[in-house]
Amino acid sequence: MAWNVYLAGEIHSDWRERIADGAEKAGLDVTFSSPVTDHGASDDVGVAILGDESNGFWKDHKGAGVNAIRTQTLIRQADVVVVRFGEKYKQWNAAFDAGFAAALGKPIVTLHPEEHNHALKEIDRAAMATAETPEQVVDVLHYVLEGKLPARG
Amino acid sequence: MAWNVYLAGEIHSDWRERIADGAEKAGLDVTFSSPVTDHGASDDVGVAILGDESNGFWKDHKGAGVNAIRTQTLIRQADVVVVRFGEKYKQWNAAFDAGFAAALGKPIVTLHPEEHNHALKEIDRAAMATAETPEQVVDVLHYVLEGKLPARG
Amino acid sequence: MAWNVYLAGEIHSDWRERIADGAEKAGLDVTFSSPVTDHGASDDVGVAILGDESNGFWKDHKGAGVNAIRTQTLIRQADVVVVRFGEKYKQWNAAFDAGFAAALGKPIVTLHPEEHNHALKEIDRAAMATAETPEQVVDVLHYVLEGKLPARG
Amino acid sequence: MAWNVYLAGEIHSDWRERIADGAEKAGLDVTFSSPVTDHGASDDVGVAILGDESNGFWKDHKGAGVNAIRTQTLIRQADVVVVRFGEKYKQWNAAFDAGFAAALGKPIVTLHPEEHNHALKEIDRAAMATAETPEQVVDVLHYVLEGKLPARG
Amino acid sequence: MAWNVYLAGEIHSDWRERIADGAEKAGLDVTFSSPVTDHGASDDVGVAILGDESNGFWKDHKGAGVNAIRTQTLIRQADVVVVRFGEKYKQWNAAFDAGFAAALGKPIVTLHPEEHNHALKEIDRAAMATAETPEQVVDVLHYVLEGKLPARG
Amino acid sequence: MAWNVYLAGEIHSDWRERIADGAEKAGLDVTFSSPVTDHGASDDVGVAILGDESNGFWKDHKGAGVNAIRTQTLIRQADVVVVRFGEKYKQWNAAFDAGFAAALGKPIVTLHPEEHNHALKEIDRAAMATAETPEQVVDVLHYVLEGKLPARG
Amino acid sequence: MAWNVYLAGEIHSDWRERIADGAEKAGLDVTFSSPVTDHGASDDVGVAILGDESNGFWKDHKGAGVNAIRTQTLIRQADVVVVRFGEKYKQWNAAFDAGFAAALGKPIVTLHPEEHNHALKEIDRAAMATAETPEQVVDVLHYVLEGKLPARG
Amino acid sequence: MAWNVYLAGEIHSDWRERIADGAEKAGLDVTFSSPVTDHGASDDVGVAILGDESNGFWKDHKGAGVNAIRTQTLIRQADVVVVRFGEKYKQWNAAFDAGFAAALGKPIVTLHPEEHNHALKEIDRAAMATAETPEQVVDVLHYVLEGKLPARG
Repeated sequence: MAWNVYLAGEIHSDWRERIADGAEKAGLDVTFSSPVTDHGASDDVGVAILGDESNGFWKDHKGAGVNAIRTQTLIRQADVVVVRFGEKYKQWNAAFDAGFAAALGKPIVTLHPEEHNHALKEIDRAAMATAETPEQVVDVLHYVLEGKLPARG
Repeated sequence: MAWNVYLAGEIHSDWRERIADGAEKAGLDVTFSSPVTDHGASDDVGVAILGDESNGFWKDHKGAGVNAIRTQTLIRQADVVVVRFGEKYKQWNAAFDAGFAAALGKPIVTLHPEEHNHALKEIDRAAMATAETPEQVVDVLHYVLEGKLPARG
Repeated sequence: MAWNVYLAGEIHSDWRERIADGAEKAGLDVTFSSPVTDHGASDDVGVAILGDESNGFWKDHKGAGVNAIRTQTLIRQADVVVVRFGEKYKQWNAAFDAGFAAALGKPIVTLHPEEHNHALKEIDRAAMATAETPEQVVDVLHYVLEGKLPARG
Repeated sequence: MAWNVYLAGEIHSDWRERIADGAEKAGLDVTFSSPVTDHGASDDVGVAILGDESNGFWKDHKGAGVNAIRTQTLIRQADVVVVRFGEKYKQWNAAFDAGFAAALGKPIVTLHPEEHNHALKEIDRAAMATAETPEQVVDVLHYVLEGKLPARG
Repeated sequence: MAWNVYLAGEIHSDWRERIADGAEKAGLDVTFSSPVTDHGASDDVGVAILGDESNGFWKDHKGAGVNAIRTQTLIRQADVVVVRFGEKYKQWNAAFDAGFAAALGKPIVTLHPEEHNHALKEIDRAAMATAETPEQVVDVLHYVLEGKLPARG
Repeated sequence: MAWNVYLAGEIHSDWRERIADGAEKAGLDVTFSSPVTDHGASDDVGVAILGDESNGFWKDHKGAGVNAIRTQTLIRQADVVVVRFGEKYKQWNAAFDAGFAAALGKPIVTLHPEEHNHALKEIDRAAMATAETPEQVVDVLHYVLEGKLPARG
Repeated sequence: MAWNVYLAGEIHSDWRERIADGAEKAGLDVTFSSPVTDHGASDDVGVAILGDESNGFWKDHKGAGVNAIRTQTLIRQADVVVVRFGEKYKQWNAAFDAGFAAALGKPIVTLHPEEHNHALKEIDRAAMATAETPEQVVDVLHYVLEGKLPARG
Repeated sequence: MAWNVYLAGEIHSDWRERIADGAEKAGLDVTFSSPVTDHGASDDVGVAILGDESNGFWKDHKGAGVNAIRTQTLIRQADVVVVRFGEKYKQWNAAFDAGFAAALGKPIVTLHPEEHNHALKEIDRAAMATAETPEQVVDVLHYVLEGKLPARG
């Protein structure tokens, strides 16, 4: 039975592609989902579809509503939620997604550099595993789905 | 993974066809569902199947029960619920469906003309997006499923 | 154990007072709650507290958010939800509250004049009882809490 | 019936005291709860009680576990969750709490300066109201509990 | 903390009084609830309050709705549900209450004479204990609340 | 999307075959499930597999446990639950299944002869429709799935 | 607001008394609950109340049912569940209680000697804190309720 | 519709293979899942993927987190959970899985030798069936899925 894995978090690096590629190479039966990763489209979707807003707050509010239809549904459908925190940006929406997933009882894997350890202590505690690289996330999925450890080289 | 979208609301215009057509043209992987849109069948189903009622209240009650088997199940199965309010009719059942969906945590998209803005303020607030045309709903689904904004003409 | 009864619906008549008075006379151990019934305050709360909005849609949206904190919490706390539909007004928020309560498994009592029977057939079907007068609602609560029928005379 | 309001977020300013004082002056029947606001105690609790850890990650992990017993329980008990984002600090745990509360269907009030509007758009969208000052939060609670608007001066 | 115990089932014997008396003598901190035990009132409540029905099915339907407001709410509030099956009557509503309680995860105690063992095998299986006398039910409650076994004579 | 319909109730007539045949003729996309209808197998399964019991109560208890694995799982998987009450037998397990389904929010269709109207008033009230013949149940499913009324002859 | 803390686990030492005493000395607003700690009563309750069983399996089965009414209800009512594993005994019921609490989202504190670390790794992982002494549990509760760290000596 | 059956418990014998083989021979439409059965991999996964830990407690903690992603997800997906207790080992994680499944309402089948009857009385009580051999489990599944009793010979 295919697993659904939602990849939440920063949309400014190729971390999702690295996980998807790794999973494909390992032949894992996984379907990945994510928020919309086109930053401009994500910010503009509300006004692009539902009408202009001169006020930035309402422009953002409109867009966030549309994006939430996607993200909250995909999180609810997911078996596992991976939350990535990059070096930059506030990423409060990523932390929000982690809390949302936690309350729904979804297993969480956090992915972030060591420098964020202290700031992410609460979210890492709620997670089942904390990785530093996308490759480690692939290895976790490989083990979880197939029971195999990474080959040692 | 195909999304299930329930189209609740008035059954006196072609708004559902416009959404279904638009989604098909855009190649979206969506399955639409709706209440029974044949107004006469919807009103008569109770007595047509389960026996005549001389009292209008009980005739309606019987029919509403049969219809609820369909509508409540489809709402529970849906990933997104679109609720359309037309210019005419009381449409209390549409508002009821919106509340039912909201309590289940289903993302809602409301669809109605501007003239209803004030009367629908509570339901629009509970929704993630409010559209004025079926084409906007298609655009929202297109973005939510594919991450693409509508082409600008 | 005191019962919590939420009185949803139109805020333009004294129907809530009639129910509260009747319950008090009958010595029922009930706590009633309701939405804010001051129409002007209800409409203005968003901008009165959180800042002006020149756009009517956003003014209403702000206010509806604040009102929803109250109404959705009270519905969740309620043991029974009474939903009143008066002769006038769209009352879509009342129908929404009914659907919300239904999905949460709350027993519902609808209260409305006969003229609305057909338009409210779906909501009446979801309800456990349909009354025409506030006094009937008091009688229902009296029976439900105390097991007593109204005195005949 | 007393309302339970959980005040999540930064623990480096007096915003909670301002809300509690305001609520008390207004005579509101509210019980406030919060995470432990003594920053040092919060960081050290794990090792202070359950044994030293030489590794900072595990020291934080131990402490976060103890703190989560408190915060997750209080959020589950709350009727309303207020989430404050201050000018400084990553505050990912606050965003996590917001997501946790949202998935549980708790009404949320966000509280933050305008400068965070764009970064908090997703969380503000999930909230029912967004305030800029603690006094506005008190006004919202006052209206929600008592149906009264703030006096205009 | 007082326990709420709902006593479902036949309303044609004094089994509830025997349990309540026994619990009182044992000084147990229990609040008992039950359906309305006045058979005539229970059958007539619908038409007595909400208007006459010439058709027996609708008369019963109206009454069952009012009764369900009480019974389903009390079952949801209960910590333990006792279901009594007497020698006579179909008692399908008692069996229904047992199933309702089981799906909600409420612990169930069945109470019935041996002659019903085979017919009640499914319900007894879903129950945590099966008693033959009201006194045994009191003893079970006494143990569950106080940890004491009945004195041996 | 295929609907799952669980057929609960008496296993001493061909009512399930009549429904399945009717659904097939109508080309409905429905999957039917039911308890084990071989009465002897159903009664003996516990001791046939898990070891003899000299005591009738424990023999029944063992068997009821095995049967419950099947019935409770199928009810949870079902979209609609049909509950049949025949002329004979206590059928308490059928009533139990109805209550179980009701608490899970499953739409219920009751099927029974008129003579049981009064005894089944509570269960009929919890149901969305009450039929007298299996053919009426097929017609209900036909309408619910396809929106079509039975042809009038 | 008083916290309910359920103390699950071995009933052969005074660990519960040490926690209750410590909590009282610290003036904590906590209500403790536990399974019945009289080993003989716990084992015999089924046959003592509901009739003799010659077969040990059924004697235990009867008793376990009665005990489960208490333990499962108290776990559901608890805000925090402490699970103690002593040096001896299989204690599978303690581990079962931990899993039951975990699935309900209850925060868990495990309490056991170091020698069990490896065997309890899964349960400790599901817990929010792992203590070695009852005094540490008191300190955790003191911090969780009052935000105070233990005085350092 | 294929059933998902999760096989929890000791990973030191071939009991899962015996069940899978038996199910295959019987042509049952079942998908089996289990925890990772390679004991070494299961113990080492945390440090093998996410980095070394010198402290045994944290090494186990890391691994348990990764394993929990798999086991808790598979239990949630399962229709039936079989829990095997072998002659040796503490097997607290198996008991934990049983409690977890019980709270989620999953039907449980316990599998263990007679010698564990008394120690497993609480878990056996929560289960729907208790078997002594894997073959009996296959027979239970055969009956549950197909309604057939094992051939007697």
